[in-house]
Amino acid sequence: KESDLRKRPEIGVCTGLAWTAVGGEIMHIEVLPIPGKGKFITTGQLGDVMKESAQIALSLAKKLCDGKKYVKVFETNDFHIHVPEGAVPKDGPSAGVTLLTAIISAVTGTPIKHDVAMTGEITLRGRVLPIGGLKEKLMAAYRAGIKTVILPETNKRDLEKVPDEIKDKLKFVFVETVKEVIEEALVKDVDKKG
Amino acid sequence: KESDLRKRPEIGVCTGLAWTAVGGEIMHIEVLPIPGKGKFITTGQLGDVMKESAQIALSLAKKLCDGKKYVKVFETNDFHIHVPEGAVPKDGPSAGVTLLTAIISAVTGTPIKHDVAMTGEITLRGRVLPIGGLKEKLMAAYRAGIKTVILPETNKRDLEKVPDEIKDKLKFVFVETVKEVIEEALVKDVDKKG
Amino acid sequence: KESDLRKRPEIGVCTGLAWTAVGGEIMHIEVLPIPGKGKFITTGQLGDVMKESAQIALSLAKKLCDGKKYVKVFETNDFHIHVPEGAVPKDGPSAGVTLLTAIISAVTGTPIKHDVAMTGEITLRGRVLPIGGLKEKLMAAYRAGIKTVILPETNKRDLEKVPDEIKDKLKFVFVETVKEVIEEALVKDVDKKG
Amino acid sequence: KESDLRKRPEIGVCTGLAWTAVGGEIMHIEVLPIPGKGKFITTGQLGDVMKESAQIALSLAKKLCDGKKYVKVFETNDFHIHVPEGAVPKDGPSAGVTLLTAIISAVTGTPIKHDVAMTGEITLRGRVLPIGGLKEKLMAAYRAGIKTVILPETNKRDLEKVPDEIKDKLKFVFVETVKEVIEEALVKDVDKKG
Amino acid sequence: KESDLRKRPEIGVCTGLAWTAVGGEIMHIEVLPIPGKGKFITTGQLGDVMKESAQIALSLAKKLCDGKKYVKVFETNDFHIHVPEGAVPKDGPSAGVTLLTAIISAVTGTPIKHDVAMTGEITLRGRVLPIGGLKEKLMAAYRAGIKTVILPETNKRDLEKVPDEIKDKLKFVFVETVKEVIEEALVKDVDKKG
Amino acid sequence: KESDLRKRPEIGVCTGLAWTAVGGEIMHIEVLPIPGKGKFITTGQLGDVMKESAQIALSLAKKLCDGKKYVKVFETNDFHIHVPEGAVPKDGPSAGVTLLTAIISAVTGTPIKHDVAMTGEITLRGRVLPIGGLKEKLMAAYRAGIKTVILPETNKRDLEKVPDEIKDKLKFVFVETVKEVIEEALVKDVDKKG
Ligand SMILES: [Ca+2]
Ligand SMILES: [Ca+2]
Ligand SMILES: [Ca+2]
Ligand SMILES: [Ca+2]
Ligand SMILES: [Ca+2]
Ligand SMILES: [Ca+2]
Ligand SMILES: [Ca+2]
Ligand SMILES: [Ca+2]
Ligand SMILES: [Ca+2]
Ligand SMILES: [Ca+2]
Ligand SMILES: [Ca+2]
Ligand SMILES: [Ca+2]
Repeated sequence: KESDLRKRPEIGVCTGLAWTAVGGEIMHIEVLPIPGKGKFITTGQLGDVMKESAQIALSLAKKLCDGKKYVKVFETNDFHIHVPEGAVPKDGPSAGVTLLTAIISAVTGTPIKHDVAMTGEITLRGRVLPIGGLKEKLMAAYRAGIKTVILPETNKRDLEKVPDEIKDKLKFVFVETVKEVIEEALVKDVDKKG
Repeated sequence: KESDLRKRPEIGVCTGLAWTAVGGEIMHIEVLPIPGKGKFITTGQLGDVMKESAQIALSLAKKLCDGKKYVKVFETNDFHIHVPEGAVPKDGPSAGVTLLTAIISAVTGTPIKHDVAMTGEITLRGRVLPIGGLKEKLMAAYRAGIKTVILPETNKRDLEKVPDEIKDKLKFVFVETVKEVIEEALVKDVDKKG
Repeated sequence: KESDLRKRPEIGVCTGLAWTAVGGEIMHIEVLPIPGKGKFITTGQLGDVMKESAQIALSLAKKLCDGKKYVKVFETNDFHIHVPEGAVPKDGPSAGVTLLTAIISAVTGTPIKHDVAMTGEITLRGRVLPIGGLKEKLMAAYRAGIKTVILPETNKRDLEKVPDEIKDKLKFVFVETVKEVIEEALVKDVDKKG
Repeated sequence: KESDLRKRPEIGVCTGLAWTAVGGEIMHIEVLPIPGKGKFITTGQLGDVMKESAQIALSLAKKLCDGKKYVKVFETNDFHIHVPEGAVPKDGPSAGVTLLTAIISAVTGTPIKHDVAMTGEITLRGRVLPIGGLKEKLMAAYRAGIKTVILPETNKRDLEKVPDEIKDKLKFVFVETVKEVIEEALVKDVDKKG
Repeated sequence: KESDLRKRPEIGVCTGLAWTAVGGEIMHIEVLPIPGKGKFITTGQLGDVMKESAQIALSLAKKLCDGKKYVKVFETNDFHIHVPEGAVPKDGPSAGVTLLTAIISAVTGTPIKHDVAMTGEITLRGRVLPIGGLKEKLMAAYRAGIKTVILPETNKRDLEKVPDEIKDKLKFVFVETVKEVIEEALVKDVDKKG
Repeated sequence: KESDLRKRPEIGVCTGLAWTAVGGEIMHIEVLPIPGKGKFITTGQLGDVMKESAQIALSLAKKLCDGKKYVKVFETNDFHIHVPEGAVPKDGPSAGVTLLTAIISAVTGTPIKHDVAMTGEITLRGRVLPIGGLKEKLMAAYRAGIKTVILPETNKRDLEKVPDEIKDKLKFVFVETVKEVIEEALVKDVDKKG
């Protein structure tokens, strides 16, 4: 299934945690740069808030790459962002970190670890804001076989509601900024693992 | 009728399987590159999800042609995608593989086998996701005289609900990626069959 | 009246057959290329399906002119398509052949016979699909003084519901492709008749 | 008042006849070419049908000027079409001849007679189609002091419902094509009258 | 308050008279040319009719500057038109003269007298049409300390409903064309007063 | 939380005061210039009035930078304005001063004091207009640890409704123009504090 654990590190795909009416689930956000002039395409029946979230991620990614060789990638490509499954409406700001990480991965060609999942709203200056549905999201991560979960620092207090058996199986990384997210999620030594 | 079996391999036309309120039917998705600048036109009363599906197919086709001589085709053409019949509203993500295959055929000039039909949602990195209405779609393929049906690997389990008389007459190809779809659907030796 | 028989072959005007709530009638679809960059303008209160139909006709016309001297006409003109009368809403796919023929006439400068009328949905690869309201449309053609009616091959079976007195006065041309339509409708020897 | 008779021939202003819920009235359609690239602006709370009517008039004006020195005017100007009064919604196709004549006047710099009024739908090939509300429109023309009224040939039969005292005071010009309209409405000898 | 009398002549700001559900009030229409390519921006929650009014004012301003050195200003700037207060919806055509005068002031760099207020619909050829709510508008002008009010000639007859104490304190200038408005409102000797 | 006091002066982030159904709160408006051509992007579920407010701030910022070296920044960048939190709808004109100050900071690279908050509608010529909810906004500023609050001069009279304990802890700066706002909010000696 689309919600299964990814099998290996991949470029331009990042695993997020979603909270829906029927519980939590993992989702794989896909980013594909295609030759173009910086146009921005989203598919996957994204709602207004999530589309804005993707827009913030794109602007922030440009800022993070400012002054580096990757700047060119933004000027000579359109960015297509897709969130499977295509017929399921999605919304909310909590995929911010996932969208950003997928874009950074696609632009730099660095794979994202397949056993890491994340959730968190982002702001334009790179702060990570708290999200809802933590318990449901962590249960979904646990079920899918995720090893490490990246969470907003400000959600730390919500961990107490999460059952110990789940907390014992997952490694938590609490972050305040997107730089911490990227540091944790991207494969470091591309030559060996990528 | 538009839903009749095609008579010979053609370029830019791919046979899909649709599931409607009144059962399954086959449909011929048409792709026509016309001199332009990469604009994207869809007709055939496509709903939002199906339009996004076409957008995913177009981006993915560009990626698959990356580094090949066909890249130029995308830059110097608009892509018109039509799904007859024109007055019938259509929607859903399951035409993803059909849309992609039709585009690849049109871009490369390789004919698509006329007795092959297919169904499956696609993602931006080329995975094929499961679809609904398998039984109805296979009955339609059978009635139309289709020989080979390409299906998502994850729909294999649904085959048990399909009557043996239908299963005996059709060859099934289960796929996980769009590359497998294209491999199966395009005519190999164009000089002889095209 | 606008629904009267045209008096002589004209360039860029094609007579179609429409089926409305109050019966059938003939309509004159007008196409005017005006200096521009390939923009596409429709007027006449066309509904979504009919606008898509015009879009299909335009793409198909470009394909049919591919490799001929007329290709330039599409690049250096906008195409205005109007269907009088301006205040009457119109919709449906059955004007496809009429739209295409009017465009081909305007682009090539070849007049269309004034005593020929037609109806048929078109697809992007030039197939002609069946239409509804055949009896009403033929009665309108008969009343208007039309001599020849071009119809989809797949509507042949519907002729039996049409009164003999009408069938006796009209010549029928059944077609499967748009090339047959154009062959029949355009004035052959422009020098003599145009 | 805006609905008063104009005092002298002017360039880019043409007097039309409108039929509203409260009777007929005359209106002055204004066309102003402003340096630009052929954009098309309409103001005056025009409805969809009337906007399309203006679009038809613009395309037809371009065709009529084809091959003449005025062609350049269309390429180097935007065309602003305004119908006072600004807060009153207007719609319908019957201002077609008025819109066309105002554009032709603005483009060629030829004044339009101030005591001529007109009404009639236009088609893209320049035919003039019948309109409604003839009696009310003629009474408005009579009250405003109009001398000559240009009408569609096909409205001739409706004249019998118009009171003799009005018919006796107005000169009628019945037309089938827009060329007849322009011939009648534009001031001939610009040097003397313009 | 925003509705207070302006303290001195300013460039690009013109005082209008509005008529709302709670009586009349003065408003300061602001125009700011910013480096650009002739785009047209309106803010202040303007309704459709008022946006069209601004469009008419812009076209007319271009015409009035035709052949003068100011033509360049229109080509190298975007025009932002704002009507404070930002949260209050506004509509209607009667700000036409105010919008035009503010644009002309901004383009030519000529200040507008601060104790002059105005109201009047404009047409594309520069005629000034009558407005409603004259009494309420004049009372607002009087309360705000306005000295001179520019009004449409055709509103002269409505003055009789205005109390004498107000009429005695205000100077009235009745106009038929926008040129009379501009003549009255702009500061003549810029060197001394600007 | 996003509504916490910022910890140090930052570039492109300005603290505003908002008034919602559940009381006042502080918000951090973020502005990020990204390489582009002057496009204008807003995110944060802004309503129509607030989007217009951002548009006014952008135009005014361009005017204020006119003739200075910063003009180039507007031509070579797109401006992304975000107001966290992303899922909370926001509207109203009172963030005008905050939007403008954030843009000026981003364009000039001058940090904004972190213990200053502000509220006030702006007009296109730089006037600061009164806002509502003063008491609730000041209580939020007080709770968040803000030291200085910039307010419209015309709100001075509303201070009497504010409890003394709050007034004693905050420094008030009353302004009539945006220049006063910028003077107060930007860090003066960038080298030392930035
Ligand atoms: Ca969410
Ligand atoms: Ca941390
Ligand atoms: Ca489907
Ligand atoms: Ca397989
Ligand atoms: Ca139809
Ligand atoms: Ca045939
Ligand atoms: Ca009408
Ligand atoms: Ca005649
Ligand atoms: Ca008004
Ligand atoms: Ca006067
Ligand atoms: Ca507010
Ligand atoms: Ca002050």
